This record gives sequence, C-alpha cells and structure tokens, in this order.
Amino acid sequence: MEKTSHLSVMGGGLVGCLLSLYLSKQGYKVDVYERRPDLRRHDIGGGRSINLALSDRGWRALETIGISEEIKKVAIPLYRRVMHDKNGNLSFQPYGQEGQAIYSVSRGGLNEVLLDLAEAQPSISLHFQQQVLEVEVNSNKVTLLDTNTQQEHQIQPDVIFAADGAFSMVRLSLQKTERFNYEQSYLDYGYKELTIPPAADGGWQLEKNALHIWPRGQYMMIALPNMDGSFTCTMFFPYAGNPSFESLQTAEDLERFFGEVFPDAAALMPDLAQEFFENPIGTLVTIKCFPWSHAGKILLVGDAAHAIVPFYGQGMNAGFEDCTVLRNLLEQHQDDWETIFKTFQDVRKPNTDAIADLAVYNFIEMRDKVADPRFLLQKKVEAKITAQYPDSWLPLYSMVTFSPDLPYAEALANGQRQEKIMNALMAHIETEEDYDKPEVQQYLQAHLT
Amino acid sequence: MEKTSHLSVMGGGLVGCLLSLYLSKQGYKVDVYERRPDLRRHDIGGGRSINLALSDRGWRALETIGISEEIKKVAIPLYRRVMHDKNGNLSFQPYGQEGQAIYSVSRGGLNEVLLDLAEAQPSISLHFQQQVLEVEVNSNKVTLLDTNTQQEHQIQPDVIFAADGAFSMVRLSLQKTERFNYEQSYLDYGYKELTIPPAADGGWQLEKNALHIWPRGQYMMIALPNMDGSFTCTMFFPYAGNPSFESLQTAEDLERFFGEVFPDAAALMPDLAQEFFENPIGTLVTIKCFPWSHAGKILLVGDAAHAIVPFYGQGMNAGFEDCTVLRNLLEQHQDDWETIFKTFQDVRKPNTDAIADLAVYNFIEMRDKVADPRFLLQKKVEAKITAQYPDSWLPLYSMVTFSPDLPYAEALANGQRQEKIMNALMAHIETEEDYDKPEVQQYLQAHLT
Repeated sequence: MEKTSHLSVMGGGLVGCLLSLYLSKQGYKVDVYERRPDLRRHDIGGGRSINLALSDRGWRALETIGISEEIKKVAIPLYRRVMHDKNGNLSFQPYGQEGQAIYSVSRGGLNEVLLDLAEAQPSISLHFQQQVLEVEVNSNKVTLLDTNTQQEHQIQPDVIFAADGAFSMVRLSLQKTERFNYEQSYLDYGYKELTIPPAADGGWQLEKNALHIWPRGQYMMIALPNMDGSFTCTMFFPYAGNPSFESLQTAEDLERFFGEVFPDAAALMPDLAQEFFENPIGTLVTIKCFPWSHAGKILLVGDAAHAIVPFYGQGMNAGFEDCTVLRNLLEQHQDDWETIFKTFQDVRKPNTDAIADLAVYNFIEMRDKVADPRFLLQKKVEAKITAQYPDSWLPLYSMVTFSPDLPYAEALANGQRQEKIMNALMAHIETEEDYDKPEVQQYLQAHLT
Repeated sequence: MEKTSHLSVMGGGLVGCLLSLYLSKQGYKVDVYERRPDLRRHDIGGGRSINLALSDRGWRALETIGISEEIKKVAIPLYRRVMHDKNGNLSFQPYGQEGQAIYSVSRGGLNEVLLDLAEAQPSISLHFQQQVLEVEVNSNKVTLLDTNTQQEHQIQPDVIFAADGAFSMVRLSLQKTERFNYEQSYLDYGYKELTIPPAADGGWQLEKNALHIWPRGQYMMIALPNMDGSFTCTMFFPYAGNPSFESLQTAEDLERFFGEVFPDAAALMPDLAQEFFENPIGTLVTIKCFPWSHAGKILLVGDAAHAIVPFYGQGMNAGFEDCTVLRNLLEQHQDDWETIFKTFQDVRKPNTDAIADLAVYNFIEMRDKVADPRFLLQKKVEAKITAQYPDSWLPLYSMVTFSPDLPYAEALANGQRQEKIMNALMAHIETEEDYDKPEVQQYLQAHLT
C-alpha cells in the first residue's frame, strides 16, 4: 500500500539513491532532487574522486537491494597494500585474512546502477539539475533552481532527507536554527588525481589487486586500479611549504620532483605535467554537526551529516551504513519520523565521530608509518596474535573494514585497548621470532584470556 | 603624523572601542561601525550579561589608555567565592592571595567610558545603527544597512577589524572562503538573569565583596554585586530534562523549586516569577575558527574570533588581551598588516583555544565540585603548597586570572602537570593536617624542587 506522506530526498548521489530505494520499499512516494545533470547522459566529471573503496559495510547495503553480484563484476578486489620506496623497491601488507579484500569501484558506474534501479521504481521520481537554494526549516518549503531553465520553484515535502553531500545546502539552513553544533575542519593538505594509463596490451602496469602507496613521511601518493587497465593515482600533498603545491610551479620542477620521489610511478605517467597543472586540487575536510534532524521533518544523512577524509576508505561505506540503520528503524517505527530520526542520530553519531577520527589518524599511518620497518614488524606480530587469540584480538583495520556488525565506536575503543597491549609487547620484540619469548607469551596470556 | 590607510572596526562594543583607541594612537584614521544605537543615549538591554568579571589581563589593557583608576571606582572587588548550600549554610574559598580579587563591573558602564574616550579622538569616527549585511572578502567592500533610515550603503576600507562578536557577520563572509576551519558548539544549558534588589537602606543583601555560587550538581546559580546595592543572579540550567527550563512552566512550579533548592536566594527575589518568565534564555556557545585573517585586509578579534562560555570570567579579558598583543605587533611591524595578522593569529590561537577549554571545564567545577568537601580540602592543600613552594606552584585559577604575563596555553599546561601531582598527593590526605605527613612532604620535595 502506498503511503500518503510526500518524501523528498535531496541529492541523487550514492546515498540519496540507496535511501530512496529503501523508502520506496516501505511504501512511500519519493522525489529525488539532484543538483547536477543526469550522469548517465552527461559527462559530469570534476570535483570528486573517480574510484572508491567498497568494503563489507557497503556490500551489506548493496545485498539488500540485490545488486551486489552485479557490482562485484565491475569491482576489483584489493588484497593488500603495496608500498613503493624511493628506489622502486616494494613491500607488502595484507589487508586481512586470506581472501579478505576491499574493492575498487567506479563512483560514476555505481551511481549509474543505483539511478537505473531508482528510475525503475514507479514510486520514485528523479529530478535533475535542481539546485537547493534555501530551506525554510519551519515550513519545510524548499526553493529550488532549475539550472536548465533558470527558473526558481518551490516544493513543500512532508519530510526532507538531505543526502546533498559535504557542502549540503539543507544543512546550511539548519545551521541558522538555534543551538546547532557545527564543525568543519580542513587538513593542510590537498589532493590531485593523476593517471597511470593501461599497458599497450590493455593490462595493468602495476599489481592489479592491490592498493599502492608511495609513503613519503609528510606526503604520499596512492593508486587504485580501474576496470580499463588504468590506475587512478591520488597525490596527497601540503598546500604550502617545501615541497608543496605552491612550490611546484613549472613542468620542470614537477618532473624533477616526481623523478626523485616517485620514480617508478613517474615512469608510467606520460601526461603527468598536463594533468598536474590542469586538474583541480581537492580539499580534505571533516564535517561534524548535531542534531542531524529537525522536528521529525528534516534529516541529514551521509556526507551531509558527517563528511570524513578518505584515508580509511569508509566514506561511502559509512553513508550506506546510515541507510542500513535507517531501514531497520523505518520497519520498527513506521511513520513515527520523530522517533526514527531521534533514535537514528543518537545511535549513529558516536559511530560517525569515531570513523571521522580514525580516518584522520589513518592519514598519518599511510603517509608515514607504513614506510617504517618497525611498523611492518608490528603488523606481522599482530597477525600472529590474531591467529593465536582469534576470539579476543582483531586488528583495528579489520574491525572497521571487515566486521560490519561492529559499530565504528566499538571498533575504535577496542583498537585503543589493543594498542596499549601492543605498545607494551613491542618493547620486548626486535624480530618476528621474539613473539615466542616467554615474557611476550605470558603478557598476552595475562591480558587476552 | 596621520597615516593614509582607512581602517574600519566593525563593532563598537568593549573590544571594538579599545582596539580603535589603539589604532588611533598609532596614527590611523578609524571608523567604528556599530549595529545598535548609541547605548549612552538609548536603553538597549537584552541579550547580553549585565555585569562582567574584570581581572588582571583586562586591567592591564585599561591601564594603557589611562582609565583603570576611573573604572576601579565603579568596580566591586570580589575576594572569594561564597558557596550556598540547600539549607543556606555558607562555605568560602578565596580567589587568590590576600588582597587579590576579580572585579564585578557593569558592561554598559565600561562601554560608555570607552565610547566617550573614542569619541574624544579626532581620528576616530563612531557610526551607530550600522548593520553589516555582507563583506566581499576579495575587494573588502562592506554592505551596511543603516537601521535608522533603512538605507543600504557600501564602504571599502583598506583594512577591516571585525570586533562584531560571537555571531560576527564578517566571520560569516570568511566562512565562505576556501578551507576556513570553523566550530560552534553549544552547551545543553541556557542561562537566565534574575535580580536580588538592594536592601531597604540601599546596601547589599548578601556579602558584597564575593562571587556567590549555589552549586547543585547538574545546575547552578551565581550572583555578582552591582554598584546600586543589587545583585545580578545568573541561573545556568538545562534546556530539557528534569529539572530544566522545559519542566518549570508555572509560577507555582518555579516558586516551589526555588524554595527547595535556592531557599536563601529565593527569599530575596520578590520579582522572581515575573523575571523568570519574561527574561530571555541566553545560549552558551564556544566558537573556534582559523584563520582569523584574510590577505592582510581583514582580521577577526575578540568574540568574533573566539567566543567562550563565561565560567572562567575571561571573555572580556581575553578580548582585551587580543588588543594588547595587537598593540605590540602594530608597534613592531608598522603598516605590514600581513605580518601583523599572521603573527597575531599564530601566537594567539593556542591561547584562546586554551581559555575556551578551561571555561567549559570550569562550569563542571562551579556547578558540581565546589560543593564537595574533598574539593575544598584540596583547595586548602593547594594553598599550603603555594605557600611552601611559591616559585614552582601556582593554582591554575591564579595563573589564568592574576598572572597576565603567562599565556593561557602555558597556564593550562602547568595546570595539567600540577593536577597529576595533586591527584597523587590527595590519595594520602584525609585532613588538612595530613599535609605534614612525611610521605606527602617527600613527594612534594621530589616533584617540585
């Protein structure tokens, strides 16, 4: 039975589409308003990363709408990190147990599949090129600009779901209400996307099933594979100082620098200078706010509620998990939006705060620590602990990435507890073999059983 | 010699006036734009606290413009906290050494003196009822609304100083620039101002030279004396829950509640119900942002850069200290605004962050801890340590309040170090006499010499 409430989802990105599908399954009529043109018919580009890491929390959501098999066909499993040093030497670090992987997927490709699914539902209407100009939070009147006709018009949905991203216009309207807590914090780093094209035979020029990292202490580059044989590299680099986006001003500077610090990658980038000087610098922002809802009539979800930096590969996964949590609450509380929204924000906020903090922390790990032999030794020791005490120890990365039943906040708390034990252990460990020393084994037994 | 740059100060409050005086002394022509009417000729009222705590950092600034003696005549020194329990029993805690005090001053009275001083300078022009609507940060064009004539007009100063308070419109324009870090966080508490009128003979009905506190765990009331014999009470109270502003809905509820929890104060408040239901509830916000400046042409100062909650009595003092720091930089770097602003924000930000955090922390101390006998014992022990080791121990409150040469961030760091020592000591102390126990004395000797 179709319900009578009119729901609007602002934003037809990944989270907006998935949420509209869930709402439609609950019997609601849903209008989706997207600022940009339909990406299935227009080349949009610009401003957002090309590929994304999909892991278990994301897969779980895709399974509920029956597209995980379809997406898996166009997703590339990454089983390990491959670290590249300045001489092109490689070292390796598996992401989890045998067979566990994160997946590189195309943001655009996944969005297209979700749009197709939404469009196929009679109860979902998609509206493109509809830019939110303002929301009157007390009446729920939304002023939209049709960027095709340049005409403004108003809608007045019963409930507004804001999935309009990190720079959400709906959130901006909520910011004007009383006692709205809000924080936007930028890293002093920007990112630039660069390309390693496919080999002449169409294959991948680096190990395909891996996330590649060029850790350089104060900056780094990473690369994720695409289905067409290319890699999308992302360089995370300071805005100012030396070296920085400011200090690299000419093609000559740039090529000398890349030849020195990323020699193996530079050799695979024929268009480096053109891409570097033409592509925009992306910003890296964390956004936290509270409350996420207003009077049972407006709810922020995904990046609009909690934008995070990309270093844990959890941005989309966290947004999809929002939808999973909401879906359960929709079933439990039916039309009681006030209860649904209040419960949602209270349950979800500690977890999205946790993943936000973890994501910032992981930048330090990726750009700096993974180049340190002690750190790699510690990861090997950790794998041994997990094997020996599988019920009481799981690496933090696995809790976040491969344990979708474990809330992020609990993963963080467990991780902090384990870190203390690990620090105590590592004082006694110089080689992998030291793991078997009696004092190490006794300490573990005392603390993990 | 008058300089040619046109400087505008947005905001004619305490910080705006003081800063305009400093700028004028450096030879600049200064225009001050204030949103409200001239408070010397109009009754403004509403929205801001009536009296303020002035302490050493504030006095130092007033000395430089030669008005500290004049203000001292209308300021009331408060030598100690007086805690009122539910039966009206009193306990006491001195603020510092013999003779050290914080001062209760009238916000309006102090502002009037500063406006008079500014008006007397030929190089300062005051413009009232000028509301900032927008600042184009790249051109420095400011759109102002004259709220008297309702006409908009534009100005384009060479440099803009934004002293327009916690809800700064200039800051709002900076927020739209790239990579502006911003945080606004509200306590779940509001405040309500209430009055204890003078006695029939014109005197004070409570001890005059004290700050009174009614600590009640999850909420509290405080009172500061005014020159006319009255006290301004401020009740800090949750918005929701029981008890809260939400739960007290009728005069009957209110009077029963006050009679139970603040009986001695309630007996002195003939207009309690009227004031409680008519006066607005003030919000308690902390605002942090960075950078404070833009291109050497715009600078945020005072609450516009760092609004804090009132529990350390440092809001105005921190704003005045901004002016002191700026004044030194003006002398050092003359017209080099970019250097002045960059140095100012880099030096000052860690200190205003520290006082912001201390102010939130002090709320817990005031509403909860000061009612605890163990806490009062600890304060007595601390006084003994300070007497015995005057060169290596000063209570945190004294460092913040009575040590204007010590930056807030250093006070906080010293305080945290001392707290660890104190926690270790208090494990051995049940009475004041235990201070002389050998283990206590040995521990102190080991850690403080």
